Parts: sequence; C-alpha cells; structure tokens
Amino acid sequence: MLKLIPLGGLGEIGLNMMVVEYDNVIFIIDAGIMFPEDHMLGVDIVIPAMDYLRENVDKIQAIILTHAHEDHIGALPYLLREIRLPVYGTAFTLEIVRNKLIEFDLNTHVDLNLVNPGEVLTIEPFDIEFIRVSHSTIDGVGMAITTPEGVVVHTGDFRISHSADIMKNTDISSFARFGEKGVMALLSDSTNVEVEGYAMSEQEVAKNLGELVEASPGRVIVALFASNVFRIQQIIDIARHNNRRVIFNGRSMEQITDVAMRLGYLECPTGLVVDIKQIHKFEDHEVVIITTGSQGEPMSALTRMASGVHKHINVRKGDTVLLSSKHIPGNEKAIASIINKLYRRGAEVVYSKIARIHASGHAHQEELKMMINLTKPEYFIPIHGEYRHLVVHARLAEKLGMPRSNVIVAENGQVIAFDGENGGRIEERVQTGRILVDGKGIGDVGRSVLKERRELSEGGLVVVTMIIDEETGVVLYGPELISKGFVFDSATGYLVDDAQCVILEIVEEIEAGIDSRVELIRKKLQRALKQYFAFAINRRPLIVPIIIEV
Amino acid sequence: MLKLIPLGGLGEIGLNMMVVEYDNVIFIIDAGIMFPEDHMLGVDIVIPAMDYLRENVDKIQAIILTHAHEDHIGALPYLLREIRLPVYGTAFTLEIVRNKLIEFDLNTHVDLNLVNPGEVLTIEPFDIEFIRVSHSTIDGVGMAITTPEGVVVHTGDFRISHSADIMKNTDISSFARFGEKGVMALLSDSTNVEVEGYAMSEQEVAKNLGELVEASPGRVIVALFASNVFRIQQIIDIARHNNRRVIFNGRSMEQITDVAMRLGYLECPTGLVVDIKQIHKFEDHEVVIITTGSQGEPMSALTRMASGVHKHINVRKGDTVLLSSKHIPGNEKAIASIINKLYRRGAEVVYSKIARIHASGHAHQEELKMMINLTKPEYFIPIHGEYRHLVVHARLAEKLGMPRSNVIVAENGQVIAFDGENGGRIEERVQTGRILVDGKGIGDVGRSVLKERRELSEGGLVVVTMIIDEETGVVLYGPELISKGFVFDSATGYLVDDAQCVILEIVEEIEAGIDSRVELIRKKLQRALKQYFAFAINRRPLIVPIIIEV
Repeated sequence: MLKLIPLGGLGEIGLNMMVVEYDNVIFIIDAGIMFPEDHMLGVDIVIPAMDYLRENVDKIQAIILTHAHEDHIGALPYLLREIRLPVYGTAFTLEIVRNKLIEFDLNTHVDLNLVNPGEVLTIEPFDIEFIRVSHSTIDGVGMAITTPEGVVVHTGDFRISHSADIMKNTDISSFARFGEKGVMALLSDSTNVEVEGYAMSEQEVAKNLGELVEASPGRVIVALFASNVFRIQQIIDIARHNNRRVIFNGRSMEQITDVAMRLGYLECPTGLVVDIKQIHKFEDHEVVIITTGSQGEPMSALTRMASGVHKHINVRKGDTVLLSSKHIPGNEKAIASIINKLYRRGAEVVYSKIARIHASGHAHQEELKMMINLTKPEYFIPIHGEYRHLVVHARLAEKLGMPRSNVIVAENGQVIAFDGENGGRIEERVQTGRILVDGKGIGDVGRSVLKERRELSEGGLVVVTMIIDEETGVVLYGPELISKGFVFDSATGYLVDDAQCVILEIVEEIEAGIDSRVELIRKKLQRALKQYFAFAINRRPLIVPIIIEV
Repeated sequence: MLKLIPLGGLGEIGLNMMVVEYDNVIFIIDAGIMFPEDHMLGVDIVIPAMDYLRENVDKIQAIILTHAHEDHIGALPYLLREIRLPVYGTAFTLEIVRNKLIEFDLNTHVDLNLVNPGEVLTIEPFDIEFIRVSHSTIDGVGMAITTPEGVVVHTGDFRISHSADIMKNTDISSFARFGEKGVMALLSDSTNVEVEGYAMSEQEVAKNLGELVEASPGRVIVALFASNVFRIQQIIDIARHNNRRVIFNGRSMEQITDVAMRLGYLECPTGLVVDIKQIHKFEDHEVVIITTGSQGEPMSALTRMASGVHKHINVRKGDTVLLSSKHIPGNEKAIASIINKLYRRGAEVVYSKIARIHASGHAHQEELKMMINLTKPEYFIPIHGEYRHLVVHARLAEKLGMPRSNVIVAENGQVIAFDGENGGRIEERVQTGRILVDGKGIGDVGRSVLKERRELSEGGLVVVTMIIDEETGVVLYGPELISKGFVFDSATGYLVDDAQCVILEIVEEIEAGIDSRVELIRKKLQRALKQYFAFAINRRPLIVPIIIEV
C-alpha cells in the first residue's frame, strides 16, 4: 500500500514536507519552514513536528528537495541534526543548502547528491523522474514517482512559462508524457489558486523594468528577492543595454548571485559588476543597484538606504527605486512604510501596485487547469496552501470534470492511502504539528508562553514586592510596585497609591498564622489588582506578586 | 489670508481632521481616529493631537462632518470633551454621532445641527455648500467653501457612481458648477489612487450577490460593514426576490440598520426582517443572515458562527457564506483564518478575492481624474492618504496638465496658505501628532511604554528577587527567578541554576559597604543576565531586578 503523508504545507503557506511511503521504504519531499503568524510573538521560525519521522527512522532512505526557497529547505538542518539522510537536489538548490548547513555547523556530515531534471533516481520500489519547473527561483523541479500502485506526480512550486530559453520553462512535455502513460495521482501547488487567468510573463516584467530604467535620469535601485535569479539576469541585461554598471547589495543578494555565477546561472560580462565601495567612481546614470529589502525587512539594505543609515547609499532626489516583488500578506505595512520613506527622500518609487514590474512564481488558475489537463490524473490532491486554497483548488479540478470522490482534500497528518483494491482515500491520522523556534530553543515556546507574551504586549506588567513577618503577619517592606509596559512612570502616582491601599487591605483581611497565608494573599492580590486597574484605567497588566515571608 | 491646516489624514489612512482658518475664524472638517499600527502594542485607537485647537480655541466656530465612518468621526468625543462646539452633519451622520456620544456620556451637552446636500451654511466669512457624494456609507458629503480668497472644494471620501436613484450618486453637476465658476483649490480623496480604472459599480456587486443567493441551497450568511447601508438594501431586495427572510446579526449591524430604517434610508416590507431567535421557524433556504465580522474581528458575530460558539447560528454544511468586503491591509491573516474555519465546517465560502462581490467606496484613478476635470482647480492638494498616496495623486494631477508648482503635497501640520498676492504655498508648521488611547488613558502610552511592550512581547521577562544584609553584604534570600513569556517553566531548570551563579558572582564581586552598592549590583546583574540568556538560548528577556537591603 502506498501512503502519502503530508507533515506540513497542507493547511498553511510554508512548512512543506511530504512523506512518501511504501511498505518499509520512506522518502521525504522537502523540509520547509513557515514564518511565524501574528500571534506567535517573539518566535523566529516554525518547523514541522517530526514525530512520525522519529518513529519510522529505519524506513527513511532519503530527502528530496524541489527548490531552494526557505519554505522548502529551511527545516532541513533541524531534520538532519536528528536523522542522518542522503539529500537529493539540483545544483543550485544544493549550493544554497550547503551555505545553510555551514551556518548550522552541519556541512561535513551531510551526504549531498546532485540530480538533474530528466534523470531518474531509484529508491526501491520507487523510480523518481525529475521534471524541470519554472518558479521564482531557478533550478526547481517537480517529479513523477513511479510506485507499485501507479504514478504520482508532484509539481513542486511551479508556473507555466514560455521563455526562449527552455532551461527556464516548465517541462510541459514531460508532464504530458506521464499523462499519456497514466497518472494515478497529481499533487499540485495551490498557492495562487485564487487568482484568475495566467500569470504575467517574465518577459513583460523585463520589458517594463527596461522602460523604467531607460527613463530614469539618475541612479536606479531595484529591490527583489535574492533567489529570483532569472529576474536578476534580466536586470543585468537591462543595465548593460543602458550602459550602467551593476552593484549587488545586501548579504543574501551577494551570496546568492555569487553561487549563481559560479554555477553559470547568471551571465555577466567581466567588469559589468562593480563593488559597492566603487560607486563614487560612477555618475548617477551609470549604475543600477540590485538589492534586498523588497518586503520592508527592518535590517535590510533598502530599509537602511531609505532611513539614511546605509554605509554607501542614501536615497535622494534623482534616484529611482523599483520594488520588483509582491506584497506578501503580513508585510504590507512594512512595505508601505518604506515606500513612504523613499518618497519623502525625494526619490521616484515604482512598485507592483502601480506598475507591472512583478510576476508571481506560482501558477494562476488557467495554468493550474493546464497541469491537470496535461497529467490527466485519476486522483487529484491539492498541496501547498491554506485550507481555503486546497478547497478552491479542489473545486477547480471538479469543474474540469473530475469526480468529487477522486478529489482528495487532505490536511497535515492525514494519511492518503492507495492500493489496487480500494483506490485512493484518506486513512488514519499520524501525529503532526508546528514546532516554534525561538533563538536556540526548539519547541520550548508553547501556548502558555505565547499567552503570557500576548498579555505582556497588550497591558505590560506590574510587579508587587512585599516582605511579611511570618509570625506577626506584619508587612516589613513594601508593597512596592514596579511596572513595565504599563503607563508612564510619571502617570502612575495615584495608581500606585490606590493599588497599595488595595494590597494592604487584603493583607489585613487574612489573619496571620493560617495555612498557606502567602499563597492566599498572592491569589487575592492578583485578582484585586486586576480589577482595580481595569476600573481605574481600563487596562489589564499581568500582575506578578513577589511575597517573601521572613 | 486663508489657511488650510491638516491635523491628520495627510500622512496616514485615517485620523482625518482639517482646519480651515481665515483671520479670526476657524472651522474644522472631520475628527477621525486611526486604528493602531503594528508597533502600537495594546493601543486601542489613535486620535490626532489637538494642541493647535487648544491654542486657538477662541477662533473655532464649528466642526463639520463629511460622513459617519470612524476615521472621520471617531475622535469627535475626545474633541468635544475639551472644546464645546456646534456640530454639523447630514441626518445619518448625526444619528451615528448621537449614539457615539451616548457611549461617552456626552450627548446632552452637544449642539448637533442638521445640514442637507445642496444647502449653504454660512460661517462668516465662509459660505459652505454641501455636495452629495457616493461612498461606502450613506449620506456622505463633500463641500465647496467660498472664502475671501476663492473657492476651496473638499471631496470628503467619494467615488463616482451612476445609480438610477440620484440620491445614491455623487452630485457631479454641482462639482461641475463650481468648476465653471472657478475653483481655487481642490482637496481630493487619495485612498485608492494606486488602483487603475473605475471602481466596479454597486449594481454589478448586487447582480453577482443575487446570482450567488439564487444558487444557494441552504442558509445564506452575508458579512459586510454595517455602515454599508446601500449594499444592505440590495441584499434585502435580493432576499425578497428569493423568498427569503432577513435576519440582522451583530451589535453594530442591528444598531445601524435600526437608524437607517428610522431615517428611511432602508426600505423593507413589514415582516421581511425577523428576529434571530425566530430562525428555527424557517427552512434553511428561507433565510439570509446579514452580519458583521467581514474583517475576521475576534469577537464578531461571524467569527463566533465560524468557531461554533454563536448562540443561534453555527455554520455547517449546506450554508453559503458571502464576504462582501475588502481585505483591509493588516487584517488579511484574520480574514484568511476565518475563511479556513468556514470551509472546515463544510460551508461554501465566497469572498472578494475569488468573486466580484465587493466594490470600493473610494474613487479609482479614472474617477479621480474626473473630479479634477470637473472642478478645474487652480491648485490641487491631495488629502486622505499615506505620503505615497499623496505623491501618486499629485503625479496623476500633473499628468492632466496641472503645473507642478500648483500641486501641493502637504503633510500633517503644514500650513497651506492662500492670499491674493502670493498664491498658494506651504508656510510654517504647527504642532501635530498622534495620541494613543489605551483603555481610559489618553496619551499616557508613549515611546518608552511601547518599547517595553515590544521587548516583553518578543522575549518575555525575568524577575530576580534578592534580599541582602545591608551591613555584611550577605544574601539573605534569593536570588529567586520568576519568568513570564520566556520559556516553559519545566525547561528553565539549568537556565535558572546557571543564572543564579551569574548573579551570585556579581554580588561577591562588589564589596559590601561601598556607595550605592545595590544600584551597582542591579546594573551589572541586568547586563550579565542579558548576556547569559543571549548566549545560552539566544533570547533577550527584559530583566527586572528587585534587590532589597535590610
């Protein structure tokens, strides 16, 4: 019996991780992170819970990576720390992984194996053929997995593109070839299923960027994701046509373009790229700066340029800033804020809301339909999306004539089983979850800590210190009140006086010598102070009573 | 000399407040709130700083409200608490204001004055003609202010619409009439300036909603803003055509539809609206529930329905939920989460990303151009927007042929002055700002409190308690560590032990008896613990040392 077990990515954008299992053999597709949701205060990243992998460690033969984005490879170090596994991926993906493993001090222990689109990897009883897909980074692959139960096609993250360079296109012929032979199940990327039509082509993006660069009188600063190597190539070409030098700026931009050049994915005539330290040697109209920070990240190069604290470049009148990127939900306010800052500094600013200078790397509705029609699957399983994306994608497949019984909307942890007799269906559930990573702590921030952080963030806290004589019950010191994140110190005068009265009344109420007196005072005090502050100022600080008996 | 002084709304979405001043006469247009930005943790709302009004209290004659949205009337109670003023507005606006004033215990003191579109209000030396505008609530007005320097047109929030009922349309003829006579300055709504073309018409929204209701087999739940009375009327009409009863749900929905019916803005045959408690008397296909919660607000009716904790309606298979609203930036994640929940409960969910069931109340680019061409102003001043909206709107006006010198991009506090000799220009700056309201506290949450809340939200805190003998310097109690929002209690074992060692070392280092020993210990301890936790677990909790000498 074949089992497909999503451990992440079916119920959220990110966290992608899929187990493919037959009898005693497992391989894993991707190990992605997710960026924390709003309520996950202070959390750095989220990784999938890997209990199922721990329990089945003897079966696992390999992990295969579809492409180099964090939501597909970011959790790999956490997995490899626990379980040694051979890793398979394309050249660019492996290079990015290598850099990441160095950061985690893991690189010497890991068995990295290069695969190329068109090649077949055999992990008995599976034959896995890699199929090139176009996406917003390079060297992405989907795969057709021939299993004893039939062929499973996994698209990875993809869009359909028609570039002159076939190396940049999704290999629709290979998907069609499997479609002709017979595909049992298609697992397809749902990220953009809400968007009608076809995604804009990268050629149109390049054309529009080219016109903007041509019309710019001064320096041009283009911000985009460093992993979007195809588009970086197009900006390099545009710079060359306009007799401008290229300057890469931002740590990830420098790192990734370096890797891409070494592997031959970026072509750039000698001398075109200059170091940022040399920028003063050129006239304003002679440079294009390619930088990170398109999401308004607080420490990014573009944010520093916009705030006037960048070492080499401060944005000023005459500059043109092109934000060639999408507005990722959750980042809108940060992006808006950086655009406002850039305008205030007198720059021209062009962004994807007001000009067509960004195209998504994920297939829109018509492209998703095309994938279904190319592969003609018996079963359809939407992947990579929140629950609503999966449902909308399922409806799309049904509109193409697939019977609802063969469209499987599964969530993380649900085992999708296939065998000859019973066809495909959802079986039992395995343990899954989201593990929060905060600093070096993995999984030690949970519901109760987040709840406290939320309370602290909304109302701050008040610490009450008091020393009480154990025998007489007399207050020897305090009650002293210290507050953080509550109100201005200067405003607390009457609040402190009143709160002290409230506390002393409680202490008087509870006789000395009775059992667990301190515990009782602590509880009553917490409740009473909460009530008092709610009444007096309508706020709910966390109350931390420290009562010491001596 | 005429002065236009924006105290809010030129630099943000919301907070709208504009001073119009000539010699010793001032009137105010709108007094709006803004919802807190992400970094304003725990803050309920934001209001404009009113220093300039306090300083010129003797000049102020009136406040005029353009429409009943919170970003135009929400700060009114805070203003009226300090300064007694006659208030002018249309019927619906005044009714909503009246309810608001009751909440603030202010209603008996306030002088509310009804004005109607087409009427002229004279506040010497101003003649203010009210002009009907279409917006996402009813009874909105812009105004043409005849001043000794010339006519100033203020659009309020508007879009252009072409409904059969002229009461629902922007009165383009009146704007044109002033354009013919000569407009000195146009102040125009910039909210949607980034969006191309014309806004979709409400008729199309109604047509699409109608088709969806007709196709729904069971209950239909429509969520939208309660203030969107035109659309509520359309849903009522759709319900009637489909032989469905209407149920209003959610506090603001019930309040506002009640006002609108009393004023005759909502027409509804007797018996069509039924109380939610009667819902069990009807078949599923016989009801439409009109509710709040389209932004995923945590306590809203729709959220409760989706979470299964609503008193009367739990969403289930067979239900169709229509979210007829926009996704306001900052709310996307909450909206996505509610859509996921509704799908999980088996409902059909239709929202504006996947169907055309919402149209904006703010003019798109072509409508904004039309307003400029109707009024043919000598000066153009974009209002109601973040800085980027104002700049993009300014560029739009320039593209229509306005000279850049006559397009004035001003920010809050900048005085826009007009006199015969010098024309229009930006003069000195007056005091402005944003006042944070948290509970009953107005302005007592500032930078330092927000900084503490942010630190607490990201890293939690650790309270260290210690009692030291003043003479011998010996530690009599502690160091005891209590943490909140830091790590699980169970995980702190080794951290606590190590941290205690760090603290005791510091105490030993600093000799007893030296001046301000406690202060020194406190400082060193804070720094050392921060370093230790950063090293040990890479987190930065706030450290609160409580050191008592006895």
